[in-house]
Amino acid sequence: SKFEYVKNFEQPDKLLPNTWIVVRIDGRGFTKFSTKYTFSKPNDIRALDLMNAAAKAVVTELPEITIAYGVSDEYSFVFHKTCSLFERRSSKIVSTIVSTFTAYYIHYWSTYFPDTPLSPPLPSFDGRAVCYPSVQNLRDYMSWRQADCHINNLYNTTFWALIQQGGIDALEAEKMLKGTLAADKNEILWSKFNINYNNEPAIYKKGSVVFRDYELVQPGTHNTAAEVDQQAEQVQQSKNQAEKDKKSRAKAQVVIEHLDIIKDEFWDQRPWLLSNKPGKGKALKQT
Amino acid sequence: SKFEYVKNFEQPDKLLPNTWIVVRIDGRGFTKFSTKYTFSKPNDIRALDLMNAAAKAVVTELPEITIAYGVSDEYSFVFHKTCSLFERRSSKIVSTIVSTFTAYYIHYWSTYFPDTPLSPPLPSFDGRAVCYPSVQNLRDYMSWRQADCHINNLYNTTFWALIQQGGIDALEAEKMLKGTLAADKNEILWSKFNINYNNEPAIYKKGSVVFRDYELVQPGTHNTAAEVDQQAEQVQQSKNQAEKDKKSRAKAQVVIEHLDIIKDEFWDQRPWLLSNKPGKGKALKQT
Amino acid sequence: SKFEYVKNFEQPDKLLPNTWIVVRIDGRGFTKFSTKYTFSKPNDIRALDLMNAAAKAVVTELPEITIAYGVSDEYSFVFHKTCSLFERRSSKIVSTIVSTFTAYYIHYWSTYFPDTPLSPPLPSFDGRAVCYPSVQNLRDYMSWRQADCHINNLYNTTFWALIQQGGIDALEAEKMLKGTLAADKNEILWSKFNINYNNEPAIYKKGSVVFRDYELVQPGTHNTAAEVDQQAEQVQQSKNQAEKDKKSRAKAQVVIEHLDIIKDEFWDQRPWLLSNKPGKGKALKQT
Amino acid sequence: SKFEYVKNFEQPDKLLPNTWIVVRIDGRGFTKFSTKYTFSKPNDIRALDLMNAAAKAVVTELPEITIAYGVSDEYSFVFHKTCSLFERRSSKIVSTIVSTFTAYYIHYWSTYFPDTPLSPPLPSFDGRAVCYPSVQNLRDYMSWRQADCHINNLYNTTFWALIQQGGIDALEAEKMLKGTLAADKNEILWSKFNINYNNEPAIYKKGSVVFRDYELVQPGTHNTAAEVDQQAEQVQQSKNQAEKDKKSRAKAQVVIEHLDIIKDEFWDQRPWLLSNKPGKGKALKQT
Ligand SMILES: Nc1nc2c(ncn2[C@H]2C[C@H](O)[C@@H](COP(=O)(O)OP(=O)(O)OP(=O)(O)O)O2)c(=O)[nH]1
Ligand SMILES: Nc1nc2c(ncn2[C@H]2C[C@H](O)[C@@H](COP(=O)(O)OP(=O)(O)OP(=O)(O)O)O2)c(=O)[nH]1
Ligand SMILES: Nc1nc2c(ncn2[C@H]2C[C@H](O)[C@@H](COP(=O)(O)OP(=O)(O)OP(=O)(O)O)O2)c(=O)[nH]1
Ligand SMILES: Nc1nc2c(ncn2[C@H]2C[C@H](O)[C@@H](COP(=O)(O)OP(=O)(O)OP(=O)(O)O)O2)c(=O)[nH]1
Ligand SMILES: O=P(O)(O)OP(=O)(O)OP(=O)(O)O
Ligand SMILES: O=P(O)(O)OP(=O)(O)OP(=O)(O)O
Ligand SMILES: O=P(O)(O)OP(=O)(O)OP(=O)(O)O
Ligand SMILES: O=P(O)(O)OP(=O)(O)OP(=O)(O)O
Ligand SMILES: [Mg+2]
Ligand SMILES: [Mg+2]
Ligand SMILES: [Mg+2]
Ligand SMILES: [Mg+2]
Ligand SMILES: [Mg+2]
Ligand SMILES: [Mg+2]
Ligand SMILES: [Mg+2]
Ligand SMILES: [Mg+2]
Ligand SMILES: [Mg+2]
Ligand SMILES: [Mg+2]
Ligand SMILES: [Mg+2]
Ligand SMILES: [Mg+2]
Repeated sequence: SKFEYVKNFEQPDKLLPNTWIVVRIDGRGFTKFSTKYTFSKPNDIRALDLMNAAAKAVVTELPEITIAYGVSDEYSFVFHKTCSLFERRSSKIVSTIVSTFTAYYIHYWSTYFPDTPLSPPLPSFDGRAVCYPSVQNLRDYMSWRQADCHINNLYNTTFWALIQQGGIDALEAEKMLKGTLAADKNEILWSKFNINYNNEPAIYKKGSVVFRDYELVQPGTHNTAAEVDQQAEQVQQSKNQAEKDKKSRAKAQVVIEHLDIIKDEFWDQRPWLLSNKPGKGKALKQT
Repeated sequence: SKFEYVKNFEQPDKLLPNTWIVVRIDGRGFTKFSTKYTFSKPNDIRALDLMNAAAKAVVTELPEITIAYGVSDEYSFVFHKTCSLFERRSSKIVSTIVSTFTAYYIHYWSTYFPDTPLSPPLPSFDGRAVCYPSVQNLRDYMSWRQADCHINNLYNTTFWALIQQGGIDALEAEKMLKGTLAADKNEILWSKFNINYNNEPAIYKKGSVVFRDYELVQPGTHNTAAEVDQQAEQVQQSKNQAEKDKKSRAKAQVVIEHLDIIKDEFWDQRPWLLSNKPGKGKALKQT
Repeated sequence: SKFEYVKNFEQPDKLLPNTWIVVRIDGRGFTKFSTKYTFSKPNDIRALDLMNAAAKAVVTELPEITIAYGVSDEYSFVFHKTCSLFERRSSKIVSTIVSTFTAYYIHYWSTYFPDTPLSPPLPSFDGRAVCYPSVQNLRDYMSWRQADCHINNLYNTTFWALIQQGGIDALEAEKMLKGTLAADKNEILWSKFNINYNNEPAIYKKGSVVFRDYELVQPGTHNTAAEVDQQAEQVQQSKNQAEKDKKSRAKAQVVIEHLDIIKDEFWDQRPWLLSNKPGKGKALKQT
Repeated sequence: SKFEYVKNFEQPDKLLPNTWIVVRIDGRGFTKFSTKYTFSKPNDIRALDLMNAAAKAVVTELPEITIAYGVSDEYSFVFHKTCSLFERRSSKIVSTIVSTFTAYYIHYWSTYFPDTPLSPPLPSFDGRAVCYPSVQNLRDYMSWRQADCHINNLYNTTFWALIQQGGIDALEAEKMLKGTLAADKNEILWSKFNINYNNEPAIYKKGSVVFRDYELVQPGTHNTAAEVDQQAEQVQQSKNQAEKDKKSRAKAQVVIEHLDIIKDEFWDQRPWLLSNKPGKGKALKQT
């Protein structure tokens, strides 16, 4: 039709090749939302489990995702730097992740909040894509989110202990914590409430990592990061190999863990996360 | 933390000021999805009503949307050219629309498909934003989608009549329709199946328009399009006026209609769609 | 070759269709450069004439430019909103303008500074492209630059009069002018130096406008701005008409004027600047 | 002024951090231009020397450039991935390079073409920026240009030998070369014209590399590429070190060589090109 010229106003938005794509989504107005559904403070295990279930579904549906990391109302999904999903079109990638995540969040809601039906306005998420050129940049991104998790959780744990167990109000608690270091907060928790922060649940302290699981590898055997950084292009695979990889990925179990992803160990033991070559089968996928 | 530098890798993505923003979302793989849930062919009224319900919820939640148009598995949401939602950041706008729409689509599913619970993989939508500088460009965009609706629906109606009532198979139907004009299809429908295409439901022929409803205006009294095009900046409103407009918008009823949006009449009678000034109250919002 | 994949890292950068493209170039480090070649202060007529000669050459070489405006070490070149030069690729357009302008600036240097040969580091210019959706936005852009010219020139004229004729130093002059309004500066010029600012050369007060000249039109006969804003697409011309327009443009004289471009009159008398339809021939081009 | 809002229409265009920036410029319409000034075919040494002189001036003026490569009417300038010139704004970087190059090209013209004054239309260059995430991508980019140089020069050398010495016309020469491999062209040159292609001037066969020169390093001592790829951020230098590096760069001689840049040797011997740490002084800069 004579109206078709308007299609030309669409601007291309392909993300730079050979860079790691991170899509971070974040709950819109979850301060209000968590109040409406009376999430327990500072952490509501149902809310976190629901986030994780939705993220696991996203990772399962999109094999191009190599790892995801979640904390609070946010989740980051990582695509390998060779990924060519949607020809790397940013809008397509971001909207697909956000939409799929939202769909599962709503769908699984009643599983985790069986007694509290959702009502409008419904929860929703914003999303954005960011490119990282090197493995170190990607690792630093992941560390940034997990360090944030640690800082916020230590603060929130102390803050709410002071209120819920210490009986002081929010303003007083805030004043008391102003300028304190991590050690100070640990000390308050221990001396006032007999809480050893180290014994807090890992899901609160570390957040959640979602990935395909294979047999762990002896660290130190090779330097995957350096190899991957030096890779310039998508490795040309035989159709046969591509098929095998695809099957291997489909068979692998998508797990939710609460591990330290800042230190090297996590990455050294799981070279497939950076190399994009599936590891050795571990166990059959349980469904 | 020392990791925070990674935040600088985010690229700004503000959409050009003083342009109309259209966000179009589209069901991902709905060919397969409509088969899985045995949508009736060519149009499944439950599926369309569900799309419309989700779109109405989106328009209701986001007062910055002035009009939306839907057909098949897609919906286009229009933001006025003066809109400053999320400082016009593309990712934020697109992801919010896609997420909110998906949330309502899943949430309302059981209302429209009471006997068919959803199961993974769940439906999801991609989304993109496009900028249009002039009213005519925007009108042409809307016309493009509605002309597409007409062409596809006339084709599909004839195609499925041939199969469902004419008893021929898809290949034969396709061959028969190849190269035919609109008039030919109308003729086939009428002569073979006694179907007057004009009497088909408007929702199939015209698609669906969602907007805030006010009193219709006598066309020809003023040229809103020209005025709006010549507007260079957001009109500075008094706080009082902004407050009044906000209330007026909140009170207005969001309606779903199946009208011709290609001709001038629709726009001439509803100057508020282009001017962004709420019209005169029509009736109290029914909830 | 196996290296060709690197071409895919180029990102498309087409400017939004149906918007006015303004390319503004600006002398790099001209504060230092004007000192090196002892430009007279506040305005050096040789420097301005050289800028204008280079701009005129650019407009002459690129018929897609409809108007250009220059002041100080900067020049803005305007492409009509229907322009499809280089498929509207931003880098191509900006680099071509910057390169062509620089070439003529260096080439004509010796004409305007016959006794002062250039030596490294040579003068150079940065450049950028900006899109404006409506005529009013474009007019406001032009007004912005000319208003800037006026403000700076009135300040500089007074500042340097105080120093050169008033015998005070830069610091004192600055202090004296701090917080003064236009009227105050006019008053200082008049009372202290017997200078009537209105009688200053138009090239200093108004800057320079470069465009193809045709017969002036009686203002008020039609509203070009409204018409142009409502235009949605490039008007499809017959090949014949396109050829005629091209010839008309080639024949037209490119003039350098120092007129008010903030008021309507300038634009109303010269509808071809906004309509992109060449006006009626005025005189033969003098070369 | 009330017009200042138009500044907000400028779109940010920062290039992704931690990626190598390549700015490639290319002569506009040099097919025609080389005819106008009767460049000798296939290579005009004056034209190439002029390109090289302009490139050397650009590299000298912009210490952020680590290496440049030129062939025919094009030049590629490489900025280290940690470069923060103009906050990595693409338009600023591209326009500055293009403008500076053009200025020197015009300025030095009379040195290389003393008997042929330039006349309008003057030569000009387009330019673009491309980002490369890894050293291998950058190396492949450089190899791409040099491989292109080789392919074109072998073809052109044979083509023009056939015409100039073989006395056949362009059409016949083209037909004769269609489908030939490198070996075939070498053979034609040798058997028909007694030309050993290997003995052709390196500037024609290899193009030109421009860089700051330091003492060569024994290859194999360390893996600069891997180190640089793994670098995530600009190394924080002491002010003292930054100052020392700056001086070292200023003192270094900018050389023009005609070396193989596809093989590792060139890069292994000159680690400063990838590391951005100045090498050891070689000799005093001659000016
Ligand atoms: N009580 C409770 N609140 C939570 C939990 N997880 C997240 N939240 C709340 C705490 C924060 O107020 C909010 C997340 O902070 P954000 O910075 O994302 O702010 P918010 O979502 O309100 O605004 P936004 O739309 O993202 O700008 O969600 C939880 O497990 N329990
Ligand atoms: N039976 C039936 N199918 C429908 C209805 N509405 C939409 N569909 C189907 C028809 C098309 O196959 C599909 C929409 O076409 P698209 O071009 O969006 O393709 P699809 O969603 O399969 O792929 P995509 O992921 O958008 O590229 O949805 C309906 O009411 N009834
Ligand atoms: N004396 C004198 N100076 C002039 C004349 N025209 C321009 N200039 C100088 C005055 C300003 O210092 C400078 C233009 O200001 P800009 O804001 O463009 O600064 P500049 O070019 O130094 O730095 P930039 O590289 O543009 O950021 O050029 C003139 O006719 N006479
Ligand atoms: N005779 C001669 N021609 C040369 C020499 N160096 C470059 N050229 C010519 C050969 C090509 O026609 C032209 C470079 O090819 P391009 O692909 O850049 O084409 P051109 O500049 O004509 O068009 P463009 O504006 O870049 O699209 O310059 C030379 O040394 N001698
Ligand atoms: O969401 P973030 O972490 O990027 O940071 P923010 O402060 O929420 O900012 P925005 O969502 O507006 O980018
Ligand atoms: O979805 P559209 O209408 O823009 O067109 P398409 O053919 O589906 O293409 P894509 O979704 O890949 O942009
Ligand atoms: O050059 P302008 O007028 O856009 O403004 P500026 O202050 O020089 O800023 P920049 O050249 O860095 O955009
Ligand atoms: O100049 P190149 O090598 O990028 O390639 P081209 O064929 O000249 O294309 P364009 O200059 O239009 O990008
Ligand atoms: Mg946020
Ligand atoms: Mg949030
Ligand atoms: Mg959050
Ligand atoms: Mg699509
Ligand atoms: Mg679809
Ligand atoms: Mg569709
Ligand atoms: Mg500037
Ligand atoms: Mg300047
Ligand atoms: Mg300036
Ligand atoms: Mg080119
Ligand atoms: Mg060229
Ligand atoms: Mg070339």
